[in-house]
Amino acid sequence: MKGIYLDNNATTMVDPKVRELMDPYFCEYYGNPNSLHKYGTTTHQAITEAIDKLYRGINASDEDDIVITSCATESNNWVLKGIYFDLIHNGEKDHIITTEVEHPAIGSTCNFLESLGVKITRLPINANGNISVDQVAEAITDKTALVSIMWANNETGLIFPIEEIGVLCKQKGVLFHTDAVQAIGKIPVDVKLANVDFLSFSAHKFHGPKGIGALYVRKDVALTPLLHGGEHMRGRRSGTLNVPYIIGMGEAMRLAVESLEFEGKEVRRMRDYLENELLAIKDVFVIGSRENRVPNTTLISVRGIEGEAMLWDLNKAGIACSTGSACASEDLEANPVMVAIGADKELAHTAIRISLSRFTTQEEIDTMIEVFKKAVKRLREISSSYAE
Amino acid sequence: MKGIYLDNNATTMVDPKVRELMDPYFCEYYGNPNSLHKYGTTTHQAITEAIDKLYRGINASDEDDIVITSCATESNNWVLKGIYFDLIHNGEKDHIITTEVEHPAIGSTCNFLESLGVKITRLPINANGNISVDQVAEAITDKTALVSIMWANNETGLIFPIEEIGVLCKQKGVLFHTDAVQAIGKIPVDVKLANVDFLSFSAHKFHGPKGIGALYVRKDVALTPLLHGGEHMRGRRSGTLNVPYIIGMGEAMRLAVESLEFEGKEVRRMRDYLENELLAIKDVFVIGSRENRVPNTTLISVRGIEGEAMLWDLNKAGIACSTGSACASEDLEANPVMVAIGADKELAHTAIRISLSRFTTQEEIDTMIEVFKKAVKRLREISSSYAE
Repeated sequence: MKGIYLDNNATTMVDPKVRELMDPYFCEYYGNPNSLHKYGTTTHQAITEAIDKLYRGINASDEDDIVITSCATESNNWVLKGIYFDLIHNGEKDHIITTEVEHPAIGSTCNFLESLGVKITRLPINANGNISVDQVAEAITDKTALVSIMWANNETGLIFPIEEIGVLCKQKGVLFHTDAVQAIGKIPVDVKLANVDFLSFSAHKFHGPKGIGALYVRKDVALTPLLHGGEHMRGRRSGTLNVPYIIGMGEAMRLAVESLEFEGKEVRRMRDYLENELLAIKDVFVIGSRENRVPNTTLISVRGIEGEAMLWDLNKAGIACSTGSACASEDLEANPVMVAIGADKELAHTAIRISLSRFTTQEEIDTMIEVFKKAVKRLREISSSYAE
Repeated sequence: MKGIYLDNNATTMVDPKVRELMDPYFCEYYGNPNSLHKYGTTTHQAITEAIDKLYRGINASDEDDIVITSCATESNNWVLKGIYFDLIHNGEKDHIITTEVEHPAIGSTCNFLESLGVKITRLPINANGNISVDQVAEAITDKTALVSIMWANNETGLIFPIEEIGVLCKQKGVLFHTDAVQAIGKIPVDVKLANVDFLSFSAHKFHGPKGIGALYVRKDVALTPLLHGGEHMRGRRSGTLNVPYIIGMGEAMRLAVESLEFEGKEVRRMRDYLENELLAIKDVFVIGSRENRVPNTTLISVRGIEGEAMLWDLNKAGIACSTGSACASEDLEANPVMVAIGADKELAHTAIRISLSRFTTQEEIDTMIEVFKKAVKRLREISSSYAE
């Protein structure tokens, strides 16, 4: 498909190396890995190797669990609802702390739990788009069951202080979960350093396939299953294993970690170059300091131009970006993170998220700059709300 | 992979036509179908066509919902836990009816709900391996929230009287769910005829990929989501859509329905031929009448020979069968359906499940018969428990 794909925070292309590795597991090695015959033992061996790559990728210990799920949405639902049944349903705890800018997989699940009587604290982000460890400390009570805070924000790319929050939660004896969907493959993710008890990720955000993810569960931490059934995944998550995708996710993780240096240098260089060029346009703003962002993401605001109008012009030129999370992009709503930061409503409607990947080229960035500048000129000329 | 695969009730080979159709959606058309740009609209169109094939495959109405899940285990968990939150948690109802021989995705979920105070009736099967509509009628109370009964049993292939139970549940105003995992692609499945409110299936049982399934939900029937999050699937099931597998499952359904006549005639002919040849061996029993079974399944018992020993001999000859459900096949337990039928314990340990597919050939069946007969001879000679 010809085009320039700059929407990698929504989803990514499967790395051709990942696809190649998955390929034999559809029509040739198709056994159920739980079966005792050679069709089963062959695939069993292959998924063991794949899962080892996941362990190495996030520096998990052998005693920890990495449980395969269908996506981070499932992992996130599982943590929150599992903790509900483990610690809250029996009256032991009553409280969960999260932020105002989590992915809907956390936000909507918290709304659901709230309807069951759970107390939810949603920490606001500050004007820099971030939260502080002090905010978390102040919110913790002796009835807090869980803190769930994303590692990096999907809209802005801003990195939250996960390691410090991890230390705090450990000190306070509160379980800590992080949705690391936007961190894996962009910055180093180390579950030991971060002191997390639970960590969610989805393969399709780091050039693996869509429809597979995992939940890291620290050694000896209990969690009521979300999917009861057979004894798959040591009884933690039932359902016949998605053999090709597990193999794909393992390889995608290996490649993502291998590419971290490239991501931190070359992808960052292209992103910064793009940002500098776009910031040279009058009345253009970027959300969040570069130092504190994942290397691939820019959330940019062009005063006077509706985000959807800009997307339309970019799309006509074959360039794919978004106004924010694809999970809600069918609605023409203001960007929720911009609103949370305190941007005025008009500005919040102008947000464009540009997200690069290791497959992005300098040539594509140059084309993007050219098309973007032309679009700003054209759209501002016909804008009723913008005047220089 | 060279071998004879007769374990199609555990999982199936992906039909090469299905794989071919999925192929471009990994590295070329990889957009998130919720995105507004052309990468998104391209995949959006493709999944709409795929889901249409699912509607046609089970004769669903346009007003009904077919919600994509990660597998039937998720669909089954969703129905039971959704109904718990919709009808039981508030005290309106307190009771679920199921059978003793459901898949663990139903059985274990019922155990979990029982721990929350839900009353569970597990209907026993009769000596023929089946249940009757009268048993269901007797169990229904005015506090029954749901009846959940599988369409066809995974071990025996026996078909349960779903249409009659559907009529009964409709009359009584009780919601009715069927796990149709072992029915799709083997016998006609029509949600209108069956009067079901919910129906679960998994693509990997009908030559689609592992890790994708669906839940059919009749028009206007509410169900609290299992996966909260973004507004995917009209808010019913969140998580980035698994584009290649949805496309694969649609095509697999189309091919499965197209192959029903072949399944009913040619697969049945091979299965019956195999069964006749094996029944000619002394002290060999097949569970359940042929007329009332899906066409591809034989659960066979060879007195004096442990199922695992037989599997070993078959596996050495490159033939894959199982002692029962792959979901529990790592345990050396007696076949649970055999136990439920009332077989003595020794006999229940001898069960071998042979399950054919439309890819099975007569030549493979002939080899199977030869190898099986040799194995019976060898193993009975060394058996301590068998004497003619």
